[in-house]
Amino acid sequence: MILTVTLNTALDLTYRVRELRPHGSHRVLEVTERPGGKGLNVARVLAALGHEVTVTGFTGGATGHVVKEQLARTTGVFDALVPVAGATRRTIAVVDGRTGDTTQLNEPGPTVDRAEWSALQEAYGQLLGSASVVALCGSLPPGVPVGAYAGLIRSARAAGVPVLLDTSGEPLRRGVAARPDIVKPNADELAELTGSHEPLRGAQDARRRGARAVVASLGPRGLLALTPEGRWQAAPPTRVRGNPTGAGDSAVAGLVSGLVEQLPWPERLSRAVALSAATVHSPVAGEFDRAAYEELAGRVTVTGGARPGKGLKGLPRPGTA
Amino acid sequence: MILTVTLNTALDLTYRVRELRPHGSHRVLEVTERPGGKGLNVARVLAALGHEVTVTGFTGGATGHVVKEQLARTTGVFDALVPVAGATRRTIAVVDGRTGDTTQLNEPGPTVDRAEWSALQEAYGQLLGSASVVALCGSLPPGVPVGAYAGLIRSARAAGVPVLLDTSGEPLRRGVAARPDIVKPNADELAELTGSHEPLRGAQDARRRGARAVVASLGPRGLLALTPEGRWQAAPPTRVRGNPTGAGDSAVAGLVSGLVEQLPWPERLSRAVALSAATVHSPVAGEFDRAAYEELAGRVTVTGGARPGKGLKGLPRPGTA
Repeated sequence: MILTVTLNTALDLTYRVRELRPHGSHRVLEVTERPGGKGLNVARVLAALGHEVTVTGFTGGATGHVVKEQLARTTGVFDALVPVAGATRRTIAVVDGRTGDTTQLNEPGPTVDRAEWSALQEAYGQLLGSASVVALCGSLPPGVPVGAYAGLIRSARAAGVPVLLDTSGEPLRRGVAARPDIVKPNADELAELTGSHEPLRGAQDARRRGARAVVASLGPRGLLALTPEGRWQAAPPTRVRGNPTGAGDSAVAGLVSGLVEQLPWPERLSRAVALSAATVHSPVAGEFDRAAYEELAGRVTVTGGARPGKGLKGLPRPGTA
Repeated sequence: MILTVTLNTALDLTYRVRELRPHGSHRVLEVTERPGGKGLNVARVLAALGHEVTVTGFTGGATGHVVKEQLARTTGVFDALVPVAGATRRTIAVVDGRTGDTTQLNEPGPTVDRAEWSALQEAYGQLLGSASVVALCGSLPPGVPVGAYAGLIRSARAAGVPVLLDTSGEPLRRGVAARPDIVKPNADELAELTGSHEPLRGAQDARRRGARAVVASLGPRGLLALTPEGRWQAAPPTRVRGNPTGAGDSAVAGLVSGLVEQLPWPERLSRAVALSAATVHSPVAGEFDRAAYEELAGRVTVTGGARPGKGLKGLPRPGTA
């Protein structure tokens, strides 16, 4: 099975309002509620693609109970979440019905104590035994040590399980140093990690810091991949309009599923870009539109090649992006 | 005991953010969670004043479970809420840490079916047997008939229990026609009911429509009361700065406690105004500051008199407000 880890799970709420006016009072016209946190989003997409996925991480309180109830109704996702005393955080996306713009409010999450963190590490160690790949996703809740992902990466490597890391800030910096197989930063996260606002240069630096492969998500421009097998850039055929929430998580699902299916990099990247674009296109935030995915999958442009070198066609060069 | 009815209970969340920027992403710095809906707020203030209060209305789902857990920890409040299949709504007050301004998001609440509404009416009928007064508070959830309060008022009157109504719109219009003992509209609700933006004229009209006494809350100007015993206006000694959330509910608690203690109207109104101002003054939205209450209680100005007539000192006259 595929294992995804979401240390800071969430109950994701979407509120549709007629028009968001600061300091006003708003009647919420429509409420949707679903399990959230990057690793749970990745798991949902993987399950929709027909993979068996196990999710671990922390949940607690009444909000955690709702998350677990909804996961239980998701075919293909097995719940191995570890209980905590605190309550799972809520995130609220307020969608302005007039403009479609979203205003996001994210609770910080429960404080995790030392015993809870030990319980997670133990559960994770056992789950690695039957995992074909593990994806470590999202922010850390208060109380979890900043080097948490670095430790989880070392355990995965010791168990011979390929590991993808998708996080930001100091947890990303420490995680990269623990030599994960793939990191998937977006442009901002990559710039924060490396100090370079030029994605190719940033990705090169991230590899030097320890990542075996770097797949940078560049928003509507698609993905840039620097790997031991080669360098590629994959872009959607047209600019897709819609809500980018969850697009990065769908890209991770594409990369992870491609890895377990042993697809070559260009196919993994096409799938990741098509899933990501089909998520932006979907009317429901964070869900992918299957018809759009199937239509887009054959139309992603992949440039670059299997031999690393200078001047790869279509790849931005340092100083020219 | 005092009975309060909250058909649309809520889980009230307060989010403090550094600065609310529409279309931005916000880390919530502080989350507070408490039972809400007007009748639950009124009950909490009554309990803090030393009264025994029973609360009824609807709760359901994970949010309702949190409401009930927190009520169980509130001394003096007895939970007689009726379960529903849907989930209790959330309300979210987003407080801008820079300006202190609040942006409010209110979910509509669960849809109540016919059997659930019958169960509420039955529970209410039984509770009336030991109630000294009943307060009917707040909006109606979807599915409850618009004449709900009118029916609950008729039952209270048939049982000889004095009844206060605090709602708005059509439920207020129909409720007033059922002859409640007291209605407590704010200036906007009174204007919507009567078509008059002049509070004295509006209050006179509301009495003609069936309310035995009308106590209109006029924000920082205090309360205007038209009753069979006389007319009064009660105002706080100074303009109180702060968050007006819950000030109206504290005023209702003051009126209801004054009624069961058989205080004369001027004392009821002083208490209601002092509680209301002490709620605005409190750093925690919807809680009253006890020290401020005790200090303000002796300093509320009550004008008017026990004999209804023209030209009462200090009362606004039609056309001069």
